[in-house]
Amino acid sequence: MDNRRGYLDLLEEILSNIPSTAQSIANSFVAEHRRLESCPIVTIASYDEAALIRSQAKPQMDSRSIKEVLEQANGIFSNRIFNNHPRFFGFIPSPTHPLTLLGDLLLASKNPHAGSWFQSSGPSAIETGLIRWLAELAGLPADTAGGLFVSGGSMANLVGLQTARDQMLGEEWEQRARGTIYVSQQTHSSISKGLRILGFSNKQVRKIKCDENFQMDCSDLERTIEQDKEAGLMPFLIVASCGTTNTSSIDPISNIHTIAKAQVPPLWVHVDGAFGASVLLSKSHAHLLKDLKHADSMSWDAHKWLFQTYGCGMALLRDRRHLLQSFATGAEYTRDAVDSGDFESPNFWNFGPELTRPARGMRLWFSLQVLGLDAVGEMIDHGFLLAETVEGELRKLDGWKIVSNAKMGIVCFRYEGTGKSVEEWDELNAKVSGICIRENKSAALTTKLDGRTVIRICAIHPEMSVEGMKEVVRSLDEVARELAAI
Amino acid sequence: MDNRRGYLDLLEEILSNIPSTAQSIANSFVAEHRRLESCPIVTIASYDEAALIRSQAKPQMDSRSIKEVLEQANGIFSNRIFNNHPRFFGFIPSPTHPLTLLGDLLLASKNPHAGSWFQSSGPSAIETGLIRWLAELAGLPADTAGGLFVSGGSMANLVGLQTARDQMLGEEWEQRARGTIYVSQQTHSSISKGLRILGFSNKQVRKIKCDENFQMDCSDLERTIEQDKEAGLMPFLIVASCGTTNTSSIDPISNIHTIAKAQVPPLWVHVDGAFGASVLLSKSHAHLLKDLKHADSMSWDAHKWLFQTYGCGMALLRDRRHLLQSFATGAEYTRDAVDSGDFESPNFWNFGPELTRPARGMRLWFSLQVLGLDAVGEMIDHGFLLAETVEGELRKLDGWKIVSNAKMGIVCFRYEGTGKSVEEWDELNAKVSGICIRENKSAALTTKLDGRTVIRICAIHPEMSVEGMKEVVRSLDEVARELAAI
Repeated sequence: MDNRRGYLDLLEEILSNIPSTAQSIANSFVAEHRRLESCPIVTIASYDEAALIRSQAKPQMDSRSIKEVLEQANGIFSNRIFNNHPRFFGFIPSPTHPLTLLGDLLLASKNPHAGSWFQSSGPSAIETGLIRWLAELAGLPADTAGGLFVSGGSMANLVGLQTARDQMLGEEWEQRARGTIYVSQQTHSSISKGLRILGFSNKQVRKIKCDENFQMDCSDLERTIEQDKEAGLMPFLIVASCGTTNTSSIDPISNIHTIAKAQVPPLWVHVDGAFGASVLLSKSHAHLLKDLKHADSMSWDAHKWLFQTYGCGMALLRDRRHLLQSFATGAEYTRDAVDSGDFESPNFWNFGPELTRPARGMRLWFSLQVLGLDAVGEMIDHGFLLAETVEGELRKLDGWKIVSNAKMGIVCFRYEGTGKSVEEWDELNAKVSGICIRENKSAALTTKLDGRTVIRICAIHPEMSVEGMKEVVRSLDEVARELAAI
Repeated sequence: MDNRRGYLDLLEEILSNIPSTAQSIANSFVAEHRRLESCPIVTIASYDEAALIRSQAKPQMDSRSIKEVLEQANGIFSNRIFNNHPRFFGFIPSPTHPLTLLGDLLLASKNPHAGSWFQSSGPSAIETGLIRWLAELAGLPADTAGGLFVSGGSMANLVGLQTARDQMLGEEWEQRARGTIYVSQQTHSSISKGLRILGFSNKQVRKIKCDENFQMDCSDLERTIEQDKEAGLMPFLIVASCGTTNTSSIDPISNIHTIAKAQVPPLWVHVDGAFGASVLLSKSHAHLLKDLKHADSMSWDAHKWLFQTYGCGMALLRDRRHLLQSFATGAEYTRDAVDSGDFESPNFWNFGPELTRPARGMRLWFSLQVLGLDAVGEMIDHGFLLAETVEGELRKLDGWKIVSNAKMGIVCFRYEGTGKSVEEWDELNAKVSGICIRENKSAALTTKLDGRTVIRICAIHPEMSVEGMKEVVRSLDEVARELAAI
């Protein structure tokens, strides 16, 4: 009984500290956000620091004060990339809107089990409505489309790829062994990972060539499908990208769709829109995505260009019944039981890989409701402007080559003068990136395009100014010229 | 430029509101927690209410005040089961410790990309240390064990099952088509879902009989493996449960391990410890889990009996290299590159299905640090006491049959008198559960055991009192007697 008393005392102490601590965390967060420009962009723990942090992982027997643990946590978290820094341009940055702090807190405070309608009817109704609206934006048929919120693009792609496998190849290994899948040289690695999870080997995946705009080459696609059919294989799935990670290129989805549906039987078209699909909400550029309507399935991340914290993506299906056919389990739940009622009051555990799942969609809902579509649209359009600013500024300068034009927030370029080998210029560009990171001027990482090292900027931060982008270009140019002169 | 000004004004207004709103959400949360006993346990939106909520999913063009959206959100969230209600006993309840509100808020405020070391070295060092400590608790070999935090048991099981597939059957469809998997009649549905994702058909899964204690029958297991081998199939994986959802039974893992490893080649043993593995942290019952040390892979949920909010589970592997062999992608990352250094500074995107992932482990770390192991151990032990209290009270009463003894927080029972058919008693027990839910006395759902409807109580709430549990039993008994008398 003493122990019980002790536990309840501890609980009471914690409860009484929660509101002020929440405010204090929020205060620090807002203060940090206001001085984000001067924060370090990239901090990596040294070997020794990492060893020290690892040693702090194990809990002690006794309780500790919240304040003390918070301070320790702040030290640990400082060893990270500030993904929401206006001058972080690597991978796909995560310029979360500060508002997400409240949406996340709200969800944590309610913590519904959003796997079943019984447990989470309110949040599930919002998620249902939100998914339908997003599917409608993409141009998918309102009467059949559906989907669910998942932890991100990898899971959303997995859901799409699995429904494709199950609808097109059935359950037999013999069929599946003959299936072939068409991706491009620029397709995201989560697709090959997803296919591997689903049982496909690399030998079944065809990497279709890209043209000079890093878009899938449809002639190569058609030719390769034809060859595979002649070899007795079963082409069943084309994965198109809407916003590749390297260059933000959009594959020719309409042509791909035509090719896919001209086959007998028609091929499935999955669109990886993890990054690009958010442009559907832009005010000036949504037309770029008019061909998304051809997707049989698609992925879309809210934790990229919809400004959410990590762990929020969407899988959308042209025909929501396919989700049930791939993911519904339980003896009491048979395929025959699928009727329209299930989609009005869905058990999301029958729609995807997870049984227990947080109501991730409520976080996106909260942000969209407060910000409104006008603001969100402008925030997205601003990314176009930032990348175009980089391209425009670079074109005014000698020595810079635009390797991939500004497209949907991403631009790739390379400094290349005379008197050095291409390999030496590769090295120089990598050094330019590294020096600017070390000096905290910007974190524009490098990637490889057509075998050459290029500097890549993904600039989608709504708070980054055009003047700030010009300054970033100036500093890259300065460093490049200094190095080139050596 | 006007629009830009408008956006920045909106941002400023939101920023200035964040700390007070965070405090206000936390205040409501604490107030609700203090009166949790009197809150409705189960609230389900009616058809009309759900339609209304769905219609509120779509955002408007204009921004709205945070306060207004919060109020609307509270209304929506009220349509849920309070999984953290002390008298919610269905599924596995989620008696989150209130402290998790702060851990979740903290993580949201930092939002590291915990897929790679480069982006998240501090949090990744903690996750690495925490995973190792948890694996050590389970008895897995410290020099080889590893794992990662995932969104929950379904994903953790998927990770374990995939490593089993890849290690035991290789990449060829012919081999995989011959693979057979052994689960029990009480195995959780996430296992069959996971196997389906991985490409296995139901025909490859053997449901081994359970004995009267709902544990896998090892004679049936051995016999079935033998039959499959004689039929030219390739038994490769046994899934044992540590805490089945229905009865919290633990399969005879040691015997299963002996059988598995006596085969040529030896079979893989995956343990589903999503619910039960947390007992490793109990002060008085950890010995029940001494056989976890035999697992080749295991799942473990922190959002069940470690009191975290949803979206936090662990996949643990006896040999962490197997994770890389199943999940590492990228041309630059080959299998040959696997050396010990990678495990000191891991890229978790090479350990599991997700590329982008939140640093889920930091939430568990925060709770464990503040509470300390003494408190957590007592919180877990308390669940044993609560279920035992139910069993003890029921045994004093006429008409109640204990169908499954109190085991690790779960007890199943049934009211059955004379003068009715078993089917009628089935119906009566379901009604007892339903009436107690409607009257907000308790939410003890029903399940099927040996074909009969039983009432099931999973009682793991650290704040539920023994006296409260006795009252729950009294009210169930009262309702049952009234119905039986009709």
